[in-house]
Amino acid sequence: MIYITRRERFSAAHKLYKEEWSAERNEAVFGNCSNPNWHGHNYELFVTVKGQVNPETGFVIDLKLMKAIINEAVILKLDHRNINVDVDFMQGKMASTEVIAIEIFNVLKPLFEQENVCLHSVKLHETENNSVEYFGN
Amino acid sequence: MIYITRRERFSAAHKLYKEEWSAERNEAVFGNCSNPNWHGHNYELFVTVKGQVNPETGFVIDLKLMKAIINEAVILKLDHRNINVDVDFMQGKMASTEVIAIEIFNVLKPLFEQENVCLHSVKLHETENNSVEYFGN
Amino acid sequence: MIYITRRERFSAAHKLYKEEWSAERNEAVFGNCSNPNWHGHNYELFVTVKGQVNPETGFVIDLKLMKAIINEAVILKLDHRNINVDVDFMQGKMASTEVIAIEIFNVLKPLFEQENVCLHSVKLHETENNSVEYFGN
Amino acid sequence: MIYITRRERFSAAHKLYKEEWSAERNEAVFGNCSNPNWHGHNYELFVTVKGQVNPETGFVIDLKLMKAIINEAVILKLDHRNINVDVDFMQGKMASTEVIAIEIFNVLKPLFEQENVCLHSVKLHETENNSVEYFGN
Amino acid sequence: MIYITRRERFSAAHKLYKEEWSAERNEAVFGNCSNPNWHGHNYELFVTVKGQVNPETGFVIDLKLMKAIINEAVILKLDHRNINVDVDFMQGKMASTEVIAIEIFNVLKPLFEQENVCLHSVKLHETENNSVEYFGN
Amino acid sequence: MIYITRRERFSAAHKLYKEEWSAERNEAVFGNCSNPNWHGHNYELFVTVKGQVNPETGFVIDLKLMKAIINEAVILKLDHRNINVDVDFMQGKMASTEVIAIEIFNVLKPLFEQENVCLHSVKLHETENNSVEYFGN
Repeated sequence: MIYITRRERFSAAHKLYKEEWSAERNEAVFGNCSNPNWHGHNYELFVTVKGQVNPETGFVIDLKLMKAIINEAVILKLDHRNINVDVDFMQGKMASTEVIAIEIFNVLKPLFEQENVCLHSVKLHETENNSVEYFGN
Repeated sequence: MIYITRRERFSAAHKLYKEEWSAERNEAVFGNCSNPNWHGHNYELFVTVKGQVNPETGFVIDLKLMKAIINEAVILKLDHRNINVDVDFMQGKMASTEVIAIEIFNVLKPLFEQENVCLHSVKLHETENNSVEYFGN
Repeated sequence: MIYITRRERFSAAHKLYKEEWSAERNEAVFGNCSNPNWHGHNYELFVTVKGQVNPETGFVIDLKLMKAIINEAVILKLDHRNINVDVDFMQGKMASTEVIAIEIFNVLKPLFEQENVCLHSVKLHETENNSVEYFGN
Repeated sequence: MIYITRRERFSAAHKLYKEEWSAERNEAVFGNCSNPNWHGHNYELFVTVKGQVNPETGFVIDLKLMKAIINEAVILKLDHRNINVDVDFMQGKMASTEVIAIEIFNVLKPLFEQENVCLHSVKLHETENNSVEYFGN
Repeated sequence: MIYITRRERFSAAHKLYKEEWSAERNEAVFGNCSNPNWHGHNYELFVTVKGQVNPETGFVIDLKLMKAIINEAVILKLDHRNINVDVDFMQGKMASTEVIAIEIFNVLKPLFEQENVCLHSVKLHETENNSVEYFGN
Repeated sequence: MIYITRRERFSAAHKLYKEEWSAERNEAVFGNCSNPNWHGHNYELFVTVKGQVNPETGFVIDLKLMKAIINEAVILKLDHRNINVDVDFMQGKMASTEVIAIEIFNVLKPLFEQENVCLHSVKLHETENNSVEYFGN
């Protein structure tokens, strides 16, 4: 068993707020992350899959395929988008780093299973100081 | 003469578009940067001043003061904000990296002159691959 | 269960030596790390906690709180300090990266428990090439 | 138990290809990685060992010794070399990042056992976007 | 006048040697860089152009165009290639970082002139420790 | 004319203080940088020289020689040292980043002149956020 990690990046807008809360309560809980006019980040995404090395190719999975899966299912939907507004798999969800990472994991897991590799984790950096990692349970 | 550089960071939303243009023309010129729902970045700002070393302190300028000037005049206005909507010195201007850097330079220049140091340049990274630098003329 | 990591930094002096050893033996075992006049590092600290996502906020823990806990209990005591001399939780201990990481873990563990999250690991970089990670047992 | 990681780097040429395949099939499977005239990378290697802290020194293992083991057994053989042609432990193997990491692990494991520490993992970055990690089984 | 920098990357093989010298003299002058079986690097290229900001777009040059120019004229020829063997603009030249940077500058200068911006400099990192910068004279 | 930059690193202790000032005044001017028990940094040093490319070697200067000059004259004296106490060329001087950079420049300039290359600048990073650059006048 060996672990392969691919880094991808996306630049997106978001805010942290609950529609059913007042502006004051959103501000009290989420601080400047609740700015109604949005803010944004350069997100850095690390997707890790695991599997056996194919003795013929030396690969667990072709990195070109791994990159294509992540880009089509995740990056194209998030990059230069508004996470709260534009992204199908984030509708009705809090756009926290934790929730984005979990939803990316849920999107990617079946796609890698089709390629006979196991999605191990999704790590998401919101800034150089803040990151989350999700292993699927 | 010696040059001192301070790095600061801000996370902000923006878009590239002209109100007087159609959505189609904005899309044709600015691509996905014109997404009407905004996107955003972790901007990395490098401010460089130059001056003589004070022989008593070994400083050109106290970095705590330099940091305070940049934070009060620039970072507080941009961080967790929408550059097109929320920032006084960007009103009515294109929110391209070039223009943001020029406007930051114009805001900071007189503030450093009051401290008897000369603002040399403002470098602004929008992503790890794209940056601009402005020297004031 | 999801994992959240916060990076903080501190700049500190230290040396590796044992009082009860001769200068020669300290030099033989610890090399230039035993310089009696001290040396120092920009330490980079990664604190990881784990927990369930609060469905209301999308958070495991508010990162502002996480940052405040780490800063008050660890960074304020270490930053711009001498680790061997100035730091209460390092008194009488070897100031190796291993021991510093273990002691930081021991300081932080009960503080995060009070916030109902579990401290997962403390990773400490002494230089860009050397780091340690401690998981509490 | 605590984990120590040492980063080392090497610059090497390689290609992905199978002698018994035609140029066309190599190109179809391995793309531009199969260029017959080679290409190359600055590989970044992270070796992690684990063990108990020696209470006398505060060390799991002296990092100078850890560095010397990795350099003598791995870096000297790979740095400024052709991985397919020049490296004894890669003879007859695919020079994929996965296989290189596995072989480095197999070379290092007994050497660290002689020093009474356990090799935990070998992580190898081929580019800033692609990496693998191997834990030995 | 403002300066725009675009970072691109390429992974390539090369060696430093002179055909007309003996293996011994190549080894004496170029050390392990002269390995006849090649070695390689992840090169990091920073291309800087300068010009006036177009008041309508806020751009000196559209970064998508800048990226396309660099990729078509430089990256496609160098990435996953052997610099000594495969690259037209390096034929008969020493594949030192200095010479590669100068030749990239010479290739790009007229292409940017056609777009009415001035190529200011080409910076090329061979490793994280070694880089060169060329300004065209 | 082309510019070559070599990065080196050193880890050192220092403090900012004036012997002839009271502890209170040192604290007022230099803040926690004046801690009498010292603190320290991982300094990152970028030395840039400029010259013509030797058409025979493709080099301005052999980077192995450049590295040896910097290491012997600067790094060996600073690394794992106390800048205020242990370093001959810093005796009686303020250990600010500005002054350290100027003194390194003054040490290196004649050594590179002996090799017929011109020292262009010394850039010194004290932390990831603070750096200075000195060009010799």
